Amino acid sequence: MNEQPTGLVAVDAGGTHTRAVVVHPAGQCLGYAAAGSGNPTAVGPETAAASVAESVEEALRRAEVPSTRIGLVVLAMAGAGSTSVADDVRRRLTGLGLDARVVFESDLLATYFLGTHRPDGYAVISGTGAGAIRVEDGRQVAVADALGWLLGDEGSGFWIGQRVVRAALADLDGRGPSTALTPLMLARLGLAAPTDAGDREPIIAAVRTLYGGPPVRLADYAGLAFDVDGDRTAERILDDAAAALTRTLTAVRSDTVSGPVVLGGGMLGRRPHLADRLAAVVPAKEVQVVADGALGVAVLTLRHFGIDVDATMFGRLATSLAAMR
Amino acid sequence: MNEQPTGLVAVDAGGTHTRAVVVHPAGQCLGYAAAGSGNPTAVGPETAAASVAESVEEALRRAEVPSTRIGLVVLAMAGAGSTSVADDVRRRLTGLGLDARVVFESDLLATYFLGTHRPDGYAVISGTGAGAIRVEDGRQVAVADALGWLLGDEGSGFWIGQRVVRAALADLDGRGPSTALTPLMLARLGLAAPTDAGDREPIIAAVRTLYGGPPVRLADYAGLAFDVDGDRTAERILDDAAAALTRTLTAVRSDTVSGPVVLGGGMLGRRPHLADRLAAVVPAKEVQVVADGALGVAVLTLRHFGIDVDATMFGRLATSLAAMR
Repeated sequence: MNEQPTGLVAVDAGGTHTRAVVVHPAGQCLGYAAAGSGNPTAVGPETAAASVAESVEEALRRAEVPSTRIGLVVLAMAGAGSTSVADDVRRRLTGLGLDARVVFESDLLATYFLGTHRPDGYAVISGTGAGAIRVEDGRQVAVADALGWLLGDEGSGFWIGQRVVRAALADLDGRGPSTALTPLMLARLGLAAPTDAGDREPIIAAVRTLYGGPPVRLADYAGLAFDVDGDRTAERILDDAAAALTRTLTAVRSDTVSGPVVLGGGMLGRRPHLADRLAAVVPAKEVQVVADGALGVAVLTLRHFGIDVDATMFGRLATSLAAMR
Repeated sequence: MNEQPTGLVAVDAGGTHTRAVVVHPAGQCLGYAAAGSGNPTAVGPETAAASVAESVEEALRRAEVPSTRIGLVVLAMAGAGSTSVADDVRRRLTGLGLDARVVFESDLLATYFLGTHRPDGYAVISGTGAGAIRVEDGRQVAVADALGWLLGDEGSGFWIGQRVVRAALADLDGRGPSTALTPLMLARLGLAAPTDAGDREPIIAAVRTLYGGPPVRLADYAGLAFDVDGDRTAERILDDAAAALTRTLTAVRSDTVSGPVVLGGGMLGRRPHLADRLAAVVPAKEVQVVADGALGVAVLTLRHFGIDVDATMFGRLATSLAAMR
């Protein structure tokens, strides 16, 4: 049975969606499907593995490719180093009749290949978390930060959102300056403004609600910093975020790699200013802001299969994937 | 049965220990006992209530006062506003045969009365958490911060400890300056130093261990900032903590209350410098650094019973309590 495979499977297991693509080795997308969260930290390894299996099964069905004709599976997943989730995923994929090799890849590297086909460059990610990588010969050779909300992720959505909420509470508390973030936070929480300076009800209600959810949900408040205009507190938070991300990118910089710089994760596209500051760190001619998606892991999958993805193939992949959504 | 009560019960339900004292209305301690953590956030409401009951039962036994001769119970407890823990505590105390009124009081106010008998003044607490209060006529009339590790507690042990760990990880990661905190953190975690600049093993191992415990345990690393001498990173962290606590005290300051200022919680006694900066906020002649203990809630209990605690009675309480430990 030394047949050439008909397809390869690429899976982007993200915090909100899991996306699976069946790719022809010539660079054509044959089938695409999405499922729920595939982030093991967010939803647990079992649910994450189930999302992966669900999206892969449906993508295979739509591609009309039997699972026995799949030559390779590549998954981009946060915390992919954890063996427990890897075992869960392998077991589920075997259950679908897939006996191909399964490779786990860095979600940061998959984000890099959302923006470029070039084998050397950098990615800076600021989504719920944050980190930066240097890529050489298509491999992630250096990483900085990406240490999670409690210990790192400086300049991330969580990091910004926590500062937004803390600044609003300090304002209500009389510890911090008045800021336009305060009414926005209260409105988001469905709380009335305090009736007078001594009214702590809004603080108590906000604290109760915010401790009621997982800490990482403070990332939901990051957007408020972008929504206010000319507020000094919000500007300082965003300036500090840009400075933190600049330090993170600087930590992976090498004189021998000039770019491109791919900016991903959702925060960096919201202010041209942030992208400009990061572009100044490396002498990159090409700076690319990307959204999320399965294109990056599709590129990675082809590379793992030994295929040199050039600009033409990158374009074909992007176009055929976009046509499926 | 209109007998005068023989004793009052004062309970300090702290994060590490719960302490109960039986106090005679004349200001003499009759019995003292300690049990495990009485902080409902740390150990859950049931365990906290059990610690309270255990310490009260033993203090009554040692005082040789029957539970029917107790005129009042006052408990100082973090998050005492929660009705579920209050119900648990009342049920357990009834089970001991106590039918006296049970009053829940702020742990911040109990800390204030560790340092003074005066009815007007301020307390600044920096232990695992942090906050400040203004006291008038023996009551807590204003509070700032004390919003917990995720949303506030600025300048607290958690706040300092998290910055210590983040600074050490940023150093290892190449994102931050070299600091003497890094080898101290690695030693505390039992980890070897990295073998070269690209060795991420110590970072990965530290991150795994630190996410393995509750976030609030980062307070354990606060001490490292006090242990290094002349380290710029550590100095900046402690300066920022002092500035944060100064803002917190300033938020409760009133021109009509001049002091004393009581500094509690464990962090503020470690550097005279911190106490000096806080003393400068209010024109207080008296600044008192206190350790933890049951004296404060004993003072509060007498006050709730309508007794005016003057300097003489304060001294008698302190002396008789110290003799029991």
